[in-house]
Amino acid sequence: MTTTAREIHLASRPDGWPTPDNFRLVEVPVPTPGPGQILVRNTVMSVDPYMRGRMNDVKSYVAPFRLDAPLDGGAVGEVVASEADGVKPGDLVLHGLGWRDYAVLDATAARVVDPAQAPATAYLGALGLTGQTAYAGLVDVAGMKPGETVFVSAAAGAVGSLAGQIAKLKGAGRVIGSAGSAAKVDRLRALGFDAAFNYKDRPVGEALKEAAPDGIDVYFDNVGGDHLEAAISSMRPHGRAAICGMIAQYNSTEPPAAPRNLALLIGKRLTLRGFLVGDHAGIRDQFVADMSGWLRSGEIQSDETVVDGLENAPGAFLGLLRGENLGKMLVRI
Amino acid sequence: MTTTAREIHLASRPDGWPTPDNFRLVEVPVPTPGPGQILVRNTVMSVDPYMRGRMNDVKSYVAPFRLDAPLDGGAVGEVVASEADGVKPGDLVLHGLGWRDYAVLDATAARVVDPAQAPATAYLGALGLTGQTAYAGLVDVAGMKPGETVFVSAAAGAVGSLAGQIAKLKGAGRVIGSAGSAAKVDRLRALGFDAAFNYKDRPVGEALKEAAPDGIDVYFDNVGGDHLEAAISSMRPHGRAAICGMIAQYNSTEPPAAPRNLALLIGKRLTLRGFLVGDHAGIRDQFVADMSGWLRSGEIQSDETVVDGLENAPGAFLGLLRGENLGKMLVRI
Repeated sequence: MTTTAREIHLASRPDGWPTPDNFRLVEVPVPTPGPGQILVRNTVMSVDPYMRGRMNDVKSYVAPFRLDAPLDGGAVGEVVASEADGVKPGDLVLHGLGWRDYAVLDATAARVVDPAQAPATAYLGALGLTGQTAYAGLVDVAGMKPGETVFVSAAAGAVGSLAGQIAKLKGAGRVIGSAGSAAKVDRLRALGFDAAFNYKDRPVGEALKEAAPDGIDVYFDNVGGDHLEAAISSMRPHGRAAICGMIAQYNSTEPPAAPRNLALLIGKRLTLRGFLVGDHAGIRDQFVADMSGWLRSGEIQSDETVVDGLENAPGAFLGLLRGENLGKMLVRI
Repeated sequence: MTTTAREIHLASRPDGWPTPDNFRLVEVPVPTPGPGQILVRNTVMSVDPYMRGRMNDVKSYVAPFRLDAPLDGGAVGEVVASEADGVKPGDLVLHGLGWRDYAVLDATAARVVDPAQAPATAYLGALGLTGQTAYAGLVDVAGMKPGETVFVSAAAGAVGSLAGQIAKLKGAGRVIGSAGSAAKVDRLRALGFDAAFNYKDRPVGEALKEAAPDGIDVYFDNVGGDHLEAAISSMRPHGRAAICGMIAQYNSTEPPAAPRNLALLIGKRLTLRGFLVGDHAGIRDQFVADMSGWLRSGEIQSDETVVDGLENAPGAFLGLLRGENLGKMLVRI
């Protein structure tokens, strides 16, 4: 076995859009597990938009990444050494120490997953927090009801594409998606979205009014800004927005100009609610049951964009922020 | 009995701030009630911020005022003629045809009220939709819990001053109010607000952080714009805003620049919810029971600013928009 491990460190904090210079590949000795710990060789890791927020040195719901230390995030890997009861070498585990090829962690912080049930990548995507985020946003946060019209932004992304498909499966009357390229728009139609548009072609508000002439009931927000303004404008009375992300402004150095139509919240009795999947553990069993079935039956298709090599993880993350992914962005290590 | 009645008509629609020219005093014959109808001599009427929206020709939750026709709104008056069973001359009734000294309406659209229980003005204010709006916003919409910190904007206004007092009576740990003059701030302190500030003295965000150094849980919004931005910024995790009004922008011809910090909704899991009191009829009995008791015991003080004469109703309304009222703005006819 190799004695050298590699990690991606945060070399500097970005101001606006991150660049490759903000990351550094560092070689370290392969760590040794202590009592109760396991050594995992990571095989796949997740890059996610929320990580951009952690690159800033600001207090938020999750601690910022530390400078000159490895980044972290969702990963799946194979246990190569174990000092813990109940986890043995060869087990596949899901855990939170991505951005490195070898991780040592307490066995209690890892979850053994079954590769016979689903491929390793599914535990980071459709069957993991990504899928659960889409499910929680629609079911718990927006309280979507059958027959309603649902709009999903960044709908070709990991969470968005699942949110749109889940909406259809839960009985939405009409599901509309926005994305940033013609190819993504085509993909949304293939996934069963009733309408889809490229937000780079024309104003979001105009495109949304055409796609949903009778208005929308639920907005699953991954973008913020002009998308949120358009959604508020198109909402029918008692509409709800589940606010999952606002990628439009993660790299912005200026405060956003939109939405400027919040006064509509009153007359239309609208609700905007931000959420984090961690608060919705109560739906986990229902989610796993539903999603496992949908994946088995092929009713849900889980798109993945896979980049090879830990050294390319920063590039994969930057590509994600630029919208180069279709579905879940993953790095195979 | 006089045979001439007076009405205030909408003479033109304002662009931005309304002026006296937008109104016209018109003399008409005193109308005659038909079968099932009553003739009411109004004694007091309400002017409310939401009426500004009705002066615009835009679709909203309530129809716009018509040009060259009388405005309408809450009023209390004495029945002077009745062609309806169950309502007799001399009865005091609450109804929706203000802005005139004589009103004819179906008896089913009026509610007989008891002047022995409360003064006529209370049925337009603390015991009426004004009080019910404050109560519904706190209890139903924001779901305020004992011990929480509550911020109320336009807190010396009709709804705001009741919202703050109700919050204290429902067990809020700390209640903070903003208002637009030193005299109003003094009044808020006398009403039992734990802290109050004049938003014209300095940035709202700065004043709020000082008044609530540990943050707020509930925001009762009557103002929007920079007040809402400051509230979002000061909110603790799982904070809720009950959005009742956005008077800061009712007369604006430009879209508002704030709030620009909606991305905080996600990490802090905040909820912004617009509401109209009409959707919260379910709490009416509880509200009437609570409020009647509080008014009897003196635990709630209901401020009123009364202007005399129907001809001065437009001036009272313009004064309300400029914040010249303390508590409920009323016109005695």
